[in-house]
Amino acid sequence: MKRGTFISFEGGEGSGKSTQIRFVASYFRRKRRKVLVVREPGSTRLGESVRKILLNVRNRNMSVETELFFYLAARAQLVREVIGPALRQGYVVISDRFEDSTLVYQGYAGGLGLARLATMVREARGNVVPSMTFLLDVEPRKGLLRSGRRDRMERKSILFHERIRKGYLLLARRYPKRFVVISSRLSKSEVRSAIRRTLDRVYSRSR
Amino acid sequence: MKRGTFISFEGGEGSGKSTQIRFVASYFRRKRRKVLVVREPGSTRLGESVRKILLNVRNRNMSVETELFFYLAARAQLVREVIGPALRQGYVVISDRFEDSTLVYQGYAGGLGLARLATMVREARGNVVPSMTFLLDVEPRKGLLRSGRRDRMERKSILFHERIRKGYLLLARRYPKRFVVISSRLSKSEVRSAIRRTLDRVYSRSR
Repeated sequence: MKRGTFISFEGGEGSGKSTQIRFVASYFRRKRRKVLVVREPGSTRLGESVRKILLNVRNRNMSVETELFFYLAARAQLVREVIGPALRQGYVVISDRFEDSTLVYQGYAGGLGLARLATMVREARGNVVPSMTFLLDVEPRKGLLRSGRRDRMERKSILFHERIRKGYLLLARRYPKRFVVISSRLSKSEVRSAIRRTLDRVYSRSR
Repeated sequence: MKRGTFISFEGGEGSGKSTQIRFVASYFRRKRRKVLVVREPGSTRLGESVRKILLNVRNRNMSVETELFFYLAARAQLVREVIGPALRQGYVVISDRFEDSTLVYQGYAGGLGLARLATMVREARGNVVPSMTFLLDVEPRKGLLRSGRRDRMERKSILFHERIRKGYLLLARRYPKRFVVISSRLSKSEVRSAIRRTLDRVYSRSR
């Protein structure tokens, strides 16, 4: 069976994921790989409905459990409708956020706890797991300034975003083989070089 | 702390839940209890968004896992925003479907399995559990004829609805204290009498 490559990007607001995802996509396209970029929640009709609900400032009274299940619904659909089939066709799939976001935002910072989410996140993603996760580590104040967004998720306090950062670094320590942590104190082009070096090392011998 | 009463209604399509829910609501109102009727998914802004997504025939490619998480999202919100607070204020809350629907539709008939859902359904509902569940047991052919609906959920095969019925009866055997099974072979007024007798027996001494 042909097998693709699944890479996820994680990081707080304003960590510069989008720019670097575009770079990784073009990196693999130059290697003549078929590339698919998706985002979470989203990239399916159903996932985009979820995205709208989650980002709607009018839904401010949403409980963290509700939020959790919405993200899991979007992921369950994305994995089964898009990512799984693409990987079976040999694509490089790059996802802007995946399971680690749920673990960190709802589990670690949101207060549900990492252990409590373990079963549920696994049910949502089935057997689709990133082989590599780039964590763009950013200081919350700096990231929020950069992002400049004003929707429901962005309004949470700096304290919450500090927890996010801590949660991500905790996961990175827990899964050192999968995580590649890159400090966004580096310039954009330095971040890009760090990513390129990692990709060269790991995927140079792949198709 | 004042405590309310939580009653759920379950049953396949066309089992006549709505009629009997109206009866139970008026039964308790006559006893000067505050009554709140909710439906699942729905009865919150977020739950109604979920309902729209689930009933949309255009979402036919939804995976059963996605469906599961949407229902859990709606329930998590309903419990925390509406049912929990109402029970704390002493209301009788009557819900048109609750957790058993998920166990039966997605778990038993949908193929995810009852055991696999156990943790997840508990996370969604927290500590809010019906003290009584009326199962209106209906033969699928008869029920579907009666309901006459044509949305996504209704289009599933008779076989699926046979499984639904079997799943419900399984749960009723598993939780005999909570379940009251009433055959909808009875006439509407006979069903109503059966429900009234049960309520008289159990709630006659309550406030």
